[in-house]
Amino acid sequence: MQQALAGRRVLITQATEFMGPALCEVFAEQGAQVIASMRDLAPPDAAAEVVAEGVAQAGAIDVLVANLAFLAPTTPALEVEAEEWRAAFAALVDPLPRLVRAAVPAMVARRAGKVLVIGSAAALRGMKRASTYSAARGAQLAYVQAVGVELAPHQVQVNAIAQNFVDNPTYFPPQVQANPRFQERLAREVPLGRLVGAREDALFAAYLCSAAADCFVGQVFPVCGGWVPR
Amino acid sequence: MQQALAGRRVLITQATEFMGPALCEVFAEQGAQVIASMRDLAPPDAAAEVVAEGVAQAGAIDVLVANLAFLAPTTPALEVEAEEWRAAFAALVDPLPRLVRAAVPAMVARRAGKVLVIGSAAALRGMKRASTYSAARGAQLAYVQAVGVELAPHQVQVNAIAQNFVDNPTYFPPQVQANPRFQERLAREVPLGRLVGAREDALFAAYLCSAAADCFVGQVFPVCGGWVPR
Amino acid sequence: MQQALAGRRVLITQATEFMGPALCEVFAEQGAQVIASMRDLAPPDAAAEVVAEGVAQAGAIDVLVANLAFLAPTTPALEVEAEEWRAAFAALVDPLPRLVRAAVPAMVARRAGKVLVIGSAAALRGMKRASTYSAARGAQLAYVQAVGVELAPHQVQVNAIAQNFVDNPTYFPPQVQANPRFQERLAREVPLGRLVGAREDALFAAYLCSAAADCFVGQVFPVCGGWVPR
Amino acid sequence: MQQALAGRRVLITQATEFMGPALCEVFAEQGAQVIASMRDLAPPDAAAEVVAEGVAQAGAIDVLVANLAFLAPTTPALEVEAEEWRAAFAALVDPLPRLVRAAVPAMVARRAGKVLVIGSAAALRGMKRASTYSAARGAQLAYVQAVGVELAPHQVQVNAIAQNFVDNPTYFPPQVQANPRFQERLAREVPLGRLVGAREDALFAAYLCSAAADCFVGQVFPVCGGWVPR
Repeated sequence: MQQALAGRRVLITQATEFMGPALCEVFAEQGAQVIASMRDLAPPDAAAEVVAEGVAQAGAIDVLVANLAFLAPTTPALEVEAEEWRAAFAALVDPLPRLVRAAVPAMVARRAGKVLVIGSAAALRGMKRASTYSAARGAQLAYVQAVGVELAPHQVQVNAIAQNFVDNPTYFPPQVQANPRFQERLAREVPLGRLVGAREDALFAAYLCSAAADCFVGQVFPVCGGWVPR
Repeated sequence: MQQALAGRRVLITQATEFMGPALCEVFAEQGAQVIASMRDLAPPDAAAEVVAEGVAQAGAIDVLVANLAFLAPTTPALEVEAEEWRAAFAALVDPLPRLVRAAVPAMVARRAGKVLVIGSAAALRGMKRASTYSAARGAQLAYVQAVGVELAPHQVQVNAIAQNFVDNPTYFPPQVQANPRFQERLAREVPLGRLVGAREDALFAAYLCSAAADCFVGQVFPVCGGWVPR
Repeated sequence: MQQALAGRRVLITQATEFMGPALCEVFAEQGAQVIASMRDLAPPDAAAEVVAEGVAQAGAIDVLVANLAFLAPTTPALEVEAEEWRAAFAALVDPLPRLVRAAVPAMVARRAGKVLVIGSAAALRGMKRASTYSAARGAQLAYVQAVGVELAPHQVQVNAIAQNFVDNPTYFPPQVQANPRFQERLAREVPLGRLVGAREDALFAAYLCSAAADCFVGQVFPVCGGWVPR
Repeated sequence: MQQALAGRRVLITQATEFMGPALCEVFAEQGAQVIASMRDLAPPDAAAEVVAEGVAQAGAIDVLVANLAFLAPTTPALEVEAEEWRAAFAALVDPLPRLVRAAVPAMVARRAGKVLVIGSAAALRGMKRASTYSAARGAQLAYVQAVGVELAPHQVQVNAIAQNFVDNPTYFPPQVQANPRFQERLAREVPLGRLVGAREDALFAAYLCSAAADCFVGQVFPVCGGWVPR
């Protein structure tokens, strides 16, 4: 797979967070003109500004990658407080309709465009001490399913990756990965038996953002080493 | 099925909204001591107050039915504004962790209790002009999956119904149901070929809140006439 | 839940195998007139004969419970031979269309009836050394989804339970359950933290076979202690 | 995406049937050495012979694409006879374990290999008059989930596509596609609003068979224009 994104202007949000670095690297390798936004998207006006800045910088955006970052809290369900809850939704959920409102009308006008949300498989299967994060991630996936169906007739494809057990330095730092107990847990819980590589994840994202994937709409793709089968 | 809930104290939120009336009626028939709260749960303190009032009125709560109501907007995705988004999450999502924090510690202490969230299948399958509602409903279901797994070892079962095409006067008033085009749509889109009765839905909820259903944890049950198969 | 099946004639196949004993006991408690067939259903003519015998014995059958039994092989995928494969499908899959052909036309004629297939969650999530069993169980569930949609307009409801980790002496004999390693595995893999009781499973089956559940068609219900969330 | 399969020896079964022609064309474009088998796989010995012939012709097989073909019958569920049922399973299901037994041991020995089953979304959502086909397709997907989990530690990845509404001359000949009623049905039932192109489907298959997709195991990927969301 080479140059799958040749000539495509791709806006990647929070480019230094979560999957941002891998996405920027792989998308650029695939020929995309990457517009890497560093902005925090929690402020209400940020989404519109990020899109406007991207357009000002590069012209019409072909693909929006909503890479929204929030460090998953591990608070027990009975101790979750409003502040954590609010912060998670402000970071992961509330920016979505704002990004779509800012970026998609131009796509609809051109009858071409894609939105890919980098979501989480935590929304597809329960995990302990992950209630806040799972809920916010669940909102993302259901949003994508609905908007994907609605925008499909306009030739705009909206889809999501639902990832888990993907290598990244925040969730799985080297000292964790070197821990035999972590390796046992991987072998036991993740059929793949290892973390998904960040580049593997980003390559799949690139595929979904390429013209080859125009046939996918409103769909959620697990990328989690078989932790959920579909 | 009779008296499946005999002696159980069941707190039903927003008892006059959404599935509230059917739930109150059927749960009472099944022998439950129904504590019907009329309070709006959007204010941040409401959840704790509703639970405290329920306990004051009836004693320890055995079952909490989170029946959260919000009239589904039909705004196109590109026109959704912050106010609608905020209102939907304030009504459907934000009360959940508050209700759980208020009601579940006593259940954990007694090592017995249930929470049932009356959710929506709109989170399981995309629909046009339903992005706000679907997203909020998606947060609910993912929350239930996570909390259900976490609380299971404490003998507290948390589950959800994901409903759609259930008869209720708000979404399907008599003039809509009498419309031949609506009937055609039902025949085409809903394998059942008719709306699910409100009592059918409430009876299933009663089953899930009965001792017979202690084996279900963190699970989402579609009740939508086969609109989603699982 | 009492007498949910009062007056219903329920044919339960292979009544001494798999979930048969629990189903017969619980269904009888719920008021059903249980027609317990002991016949092996692998022979091609057996299904028609079992249904004919049931009708001769009791009259029109209201509910057919397809409780098909086959001890899950644990053969590695690369060693599965034709004999095992054939035997599994002969026991679990091939009898389904025969049973439906034999029992359902009378239901369609009366515009009332139910079929419940006791299936397995092995079809919903991969397990090692279970390829033959999973494949046969997968055929069952997909069959139920299709036939359920097709027969719904005839007021015949076809659904399935997809179970796993349900207590039964064949798969989980006392010496296994007493083994601390098994208990650790349960705690680790099954959110419920214990086996589902055979009676819990049978009670849910009874609910799905009662009039209260007329709203479910072509649906698959996991009963596996949260091992799959939906 | 170019040359994603450079140097890979890919055995494609029933290369002139179902997705065979599109797969052969696209895989060759992607640099694969395509070994196109024309053999009918229903005879018990055919799978082993097809694999042996492939190895004799090209050397060790890197990727096996199980493209099994059977024209979906449209028999009502109550009229399905043994012959149809047997033929469907003989064509779609029984060859799978034989192909795996024939092709995968060499992959396990080399600790590298892939199997992709071209399955159907008919196993994921019920359709009328499709019971035989759905059941056989359901067996395929559950088999893939199980074998995928089992073979993952051996560095062999087994996955499936679950397709529907993919353009092909057998199911959707030009006169059908030109029919306004068919176009209305597509618009109504398939969020994409058109058939998935055969090449789109084959490109996705090529991606899943490339090194980039080593992270997917035991997973089922719907390719059906959003007809199922996951």
